[in-house]
Amino acid sequence: MDDRILRSVPQLSAEMQHFEEYLAGAFAGVSYVERAARDLVTQGGKRLRPALVITSAMLGNYDRDHVIPLAAAIETMHAATLVHDDVIDGAETRRDRPALHTISGNHVAIYTGDYMLARSLRMLAACKLPAEEMSRLAYVIEQICSGDIAQYMGRSSIPGYRTYLRRIIGKTGLLFAAACATGAYAGQLEEQSQKLLWHFGLRLGAAFQIRDDLLDVESIGSKIGKPTGRDLMDGIITLPLLLASTATDFRTELQRFLGGDRNEVKAAELIRWARQSGSVARAKDILENNLTKCSNMLNKLPESEARQGLQAFVEILAI
Amino acid sequence: MDDRILRSVPQLSAEMQHFEEYLAGAFAGVSYVERAARDLVTQGGKRLRPALVITSAMLGNYDRDHVIPLAAAIETMHAATLVHDDVIDGAETRRDRPALHTISGNHVAIYTGDYMLARSLRMLAACKLPAEEMSRLAYVIEQICSGDIAQYMGRSSIPGYRTYLRRIIGKTGLLFAAACATGAYAGQLEEQSQKLLWHFGLRLGAAFQIRDDLLDVESIGSKIGKPTGRDLMDGIITLPLLLASTATDFRTELQRFLGGDRNEVKAAELIRWARQSGSVARAKDILENNLTKCSNMLNKLPESEARQGLQAFVEILAI
Repeated sequence: MDDRILRSVPQLSAEMQHFEEYLAGAFAGVSYVERAARDLVTQGGKRLRPALVITSAMLGNYDRDHVIPLAAAIETMHAATLVHDDVIDGAETRRDRPALHTISGNHVAIYTGDYMLARSLRMLAACKLPAEEMSRLAYVIEQICSGDIAQYMGRSSIPGYRTYLRRIIGKTGLLFAAACATGAYAGQLEEQSQKLLWHFGLRLGAAFQIRDDLLDVESIGSKIGKPTGRDLMDGIITLPLLLASTATDFRTELQRFLGGDRNEVKAAELIRWARQSGSVARAKDILENNLTKCSNMLNKLPESEARQGLQAFVEILAI
Repeated sequence: MDDRILRSVPQLSAEMQHFEEYLAGAFAGVSYVERAARDLVTQGGKRLRPALVITSAMLGNYDRDHVIPLAAAIETMHAATLVHDDVIDGAETRRDRPALHTISGNHVAIYTGDYMLARSLRMLAACKLPAEEMSRLAYVIEQICSGDIAQYMGRSSIPGYRTYLRRIIGKTGLLFAAACATGAYAGQLEEQSQKLLWHFGLRLGAAFQIRDDLLDVESIGSKIGKPTGRDLMDGIITLPLLLASTATDFRTELQRFLGGDRNEVKAAELIRWARQSGSVARAKDILENNLTKCSNMLNKLPESEARQGLQAFVEILAI
C-alpha cells in the first residue's frame, strides 16, 4: 500500500490490518485448497481494490463488520482471476514467488481459482449484500472474463481506440468501479454518490492501465521491475503504439512485427519511433486528462479525509 | 431426461421446456463467450440437477418464475465445472462433441467457465435467493473444488472407505443435495422437509456415483458408451475394487498396477478378480441399500405426484 494513501487517511492503516486478518482467517482451514488459497491471498499485492472499498465506505457511515468482508470478497475475486491468468499465460512467477500452477499443476490451480470465486460469493452473502449489489458484482466478473476472451481472440492485431478502451476497462476499470461503488453502498451514500464513485473507479482503473502502458515504453518501467517492451513482445498494443499507428508507415512496420518474428531489438526500435512521433507524450496527456477528470469527480463530494484518501489514489498514478 | 421420470410427473415435461428456453435465453448474446457458453449449456446432458430442483419445488407451492432461474443457475454451475474438468483432463470430447478447449484453447475454456460461474450467481440474484441459500450453494461449489483437489492429490493410491464416500459425495452428492434442498426452499416446504431433501439428494448422488463405478466394471458399461475399466486405467479406484482390496494379495496387485505400467489386459484381470471375490456383488448391495434409504426418506413426505417423480429418480439408478 502506497504511503501517500495511508498518510491521507489516518484510520486506513488500522482498517487494512483488520482486512488482512479477516482475509487470512477466511482461509484458515488445513485442506490443500485452503492452504493454497491462503498463500495466494496473503502473498501481498498492492491491495488497491480493498483499500478503494474501505476508503469509499469511509465517505459515509463506516461499519467495519459490513465493509471488511466486502473488501475481502473483492480482493479474493481479483486473486482468483490472477491464478487463472497465470495458468493461461504459463507465468512462472507471481509477486516474486513461483506461481501456484508451477508448484501444484494446472489441476490444482484451476480448481483453487474456482474455489476462491465461490468463497468470495460466500463472503458477500455473509454481509447480506442485497441481490442488486450481488448482481452487479457478478456482472463485473462476467464482463472481465468476456473482455479477456475478446482481447485474446483479437491478439496480435492493432485494435481501434474504442476496442482499446473496452480492454483496459475490462482489465482494471470494472473491478475498481465495483470496489468504489460497493464501498459507497456499504457506507450508505446516496445513490447519486454511488454512481459517481462507480464512474470514478472506472476512470481510475483506465488511468491505472494507461500508466502501465507508459511504464512499458518508458525506461522508468525497468526501474520498478517491468522490462521495457514486454507487452509489445506479447503482442499487446499499448496506448503509445496504438496512437503512433495512425501513421501508415508505422502501422505497416508494427503489423510486420506482430505477424512475423518478434525480437527485442525491433521492439525497442518501434518504441523509439513511437516516442519520436510524439505518441508517448500524447499518451501521457491522455493519462493526465483522465486523472484530472478523476479529481473533478471527487470534488463534487463534500470535503473529507476519505475524499483526500481517494485523491491520493489519483495522485500516485501521475507520471 | 429419462422417460420414467417424465411419465411420473405429467407437468414436468412442460417445465423442462421452460427451463431450456430460459437457459438458452440467458446466453443469448453475440459475444464469443456467450456463444461458447450457450453451446455448452444447450448441448444436452441428462438435466438431472434442474429436474431435481423443479420436482422438489413441486412438492410444495410451485412458482415457475422463481424455480426455473434456480434450476438454470444450478445447471450452469454444473456445466462450468465440466468445462474446467475437460481442460484439466485434456478430454477430447464432451457429450459427443469436441470439448471447448479443443476448439478454442485453454484460455477461452477457462474464462468461459469463470464467466458461467458468475452468470449463475446473477441468475440466483435475479430470483432474490436469500443470503443463507446463496451461501449454501457457494459452500457446495467450494466443497466440490476442494474434494476434486483432494482426489487429485490422492490419485493412484487406494483410498479408505470414508475417503471414498467423501469423494463421491463431493463429485455428485453435494450438487444433487443442493438441487433438492434449494428446490424445496423455492417450493416453500417447511424446514424439516428441506433438510430431508438435502439428505435425500446427498444419498441419491452417492448412489449415482456407485452405479457409475459398477458400470465401469460391468459389461453393461460398454453398452451405454462407457468402456470397461476406464476409471481404473485413470488411477481412480471404484467401489468394487476398493472392497476387493481388503484382501492383501489383491491389494498388492492393485498397488503394483497403480504404481507401474497400466495396461488394459491387467485392468481386465483385476476387475475379473474383484468379481470372483464377490466385491462386485457387495458393491451392488451397497447401491441397493442406498436406493432403499432414498425411498424410505421419500416415504416420510406426503404422497404426491412430485414425490413419485423423485421416486422415479431413485428407480432409474437400480441395476
